[in-house]
Amino acid sequence: MSQKPQIFDRVVEHSIRVRYSETDRMGVVYHTNYIVWFEIGRTEFCRAAGIPYRQMEEEGILIPVTGVDCTYRRPARYDDGVTIRTRMGEVGSRGLTFFYELVGEDGKLLAEGSTRHIFTDLTTKPIRIPENIRTRFAEFVGAEIS
Amino acid sequence: MSQKPQIFDRVVEHSIRVRYSETDRMGVVYHTNYIVWFEIGRTEFCRAAGIPYRQMEEEGILIPVTGVDCTYRRPARYDDGVTIRTRMGEVGSRGLTFFYELVGEDGKLLAEGSTRHIFTDLTTKPIRIPENIRTRFAEFVGAEIS
Amino acid sequence: MSQKPQIFDRVVEHSIRVRYSETDRMGVVYHTNYIVWFEIGRTEFCRAAGIPYRQMEEEGILIPVTGVDCTYRRPARYDDGVTIRTRMGEVGSRGLTFFYELVGEDGKLLAEGSTRHIFTDLTTKPIRIPENIRTRFAEFVGAEIS
Amino acid sequence: MSQKPQIFDRVVEHSIRVRYSETDRMGVVYHTNYIVWFEIGRTEFCRAAGIPYRQMEEEGILIPVTGVDCTYRRPARYDDGVTIRTRMGEVGSRGLTFFYELVGEDGKLLAEGSTRHIFTDLTTKPIRIPENIRTRFAEFVGAEIS
Repeated sequence: MSQKPQIFDRVVEHSIRVRYSETDRMGVVYHTNYIVWFEIGRTEFCRAAGIPYRQMEEEGILIPVTGVDCTYRRPARYDDGVTIRTRMGEVGSRGLTFFYELVGEDGKLLAEGSTRHIFTDLTTKPIRIPENIRTRFAEFVGAEIS
Repeated sequence: MSQKPQIFDRVVEHSIRVRYSETDRMGVVYHTNYIVWFEIGRTEFCRAAGIPYRQMEEEGILIPVTGVDCTYRRPARYDDGVTIRTRMGEVGSRGLTFFYELVGEDGKLLAEGSTRHIFTDLTTKPIRIPENIRTRFAEFVGAEIS
Repeated sequence: MSQKPQIFDRVVEHSIRVRYSETDRMGVVYHTNYIVWFEIGRTEFCRAAGIPYRQMEEEGILIPVTGVDCTYRRPARYDDGVTIRTRMGEVGSRGLTFFYELVGEDGKLLAEGSTRHIFTDLTTKPIRIPENIRTRFAEFVGAEIS
Repeated sequence: MSQKPQIFDRVVEHSIRVRYSETDRMGVVYHTNYIVWFEIGRTEFCRAAGIPYRQMEEEGILIPVTGVDCTYRRPARYDDGVTIRTRMGEVGSRGLTFFYELVGEDGKLLAEGSTRHIFTDLTTKPIRIPENIRTRFAEFVGAEIS
């Protein structure tokens, strides 16, 4: 969205296989499913960073999506392997952004995009990110903690 | 499942139109979506009976699905009109069953099936159905209230 | 995305009701389902314009999504009514853009976004839009046909 | 459905992790997603048997679902690991049945069910199963080939 977003180099990769249910009558994956895969990517990113998303929710912190964009390059098909490459943008006190690339078994880019998030409590009221979570993310991506 | 289930005559009909997202690469509706439509059918059945399902949940009563079966007769396709015909089986003190027929614009049967449910509280602990709900359902279908 | 996109005033409105299956454990609609609703919006837009999308596909013209963005304002919940307001951007010879607003029963904006599309043949090879389709869309939105 | 169906012992296991998108506002997995997982189970069963389902489709043989049933025992939740255990019933000349158990990380049964299928050509006209496919399935499960 914005020009020149900060994106950290740290990548978490996770592979999935296209389900029959994810295809549509055009014979390829229905377009919103790529964005479902983004969600799998950030689940695995948080797990790799040592702060599983489910655990965050259980501690009362939600990270709902406030915006998404996706650009489609090549279609994925039933039973294809797809690798989700997830990276993180700068973690602000109130929200964060994830960036995604979806790559086919031949290494070619299928789609790319990003999701924007805020931190909220269980009532979905916006909150500031707890300092320990911010520090953990920052350490994981090697950012200076301001 | 069981032989000769009690099914009341009272039918609630509701029509939907097939979404592109509901198709699969076979060019027809993906099979689990018929069962999603069953859910729409029982939502409308409860509304017609005067006890909207959302209201029941807000009052602390959940009716989770404990079993489902569906038999597929003819495929539905993108942009087809489909009518969901929902009826109810006998309401026990601990659960109930809904029966469904999905019918195309030509009046032909697309699929039929049933869902079995129990009543639970918000923690999903089984409960007995509150008497006022049972009475309302019974009145709606014209059953004798035992 | 782009600055100052051309958006025509002609709006096609279509209302849906939130399905239980569309919610997630946060208690609100799962974010990709808003984008599924966008698809319903453009299906109804094409129908209103006199060129049903299914008919276009049957005549060998596909309009796959090449990009999508969505910004979320307020959550929708199970059984809420939602109105999809769809408008069209300028129709180029090779593609077009749709713009969407999702509005709750209280008239408040739930989400807004756009989808970008190209025209392809049944093998998904890009094609120029057939002149009769371009003319029909232009007439529908009141655009000058260049 | 029928009493005492033939079920072969050969089991193919495949594990998945529950996606956020698969949950509903009850906080657990939406019930039709268990049946989507059945489909993943039979995809992996066919692959293990040496006849990948995608390859069958590319050779012009479809195996659409003609019926499904599922009984729910325990809910699965976001990020849970789930193992799909798939077995096959007797392969007739015109169709076959798969049986499924979904098991949680603690080894407890979450759900079980079956899907019934026929063989069709690409126009979805019923056909007899090609002999080489029938033989392969029979060899895989150790059945006598009648």
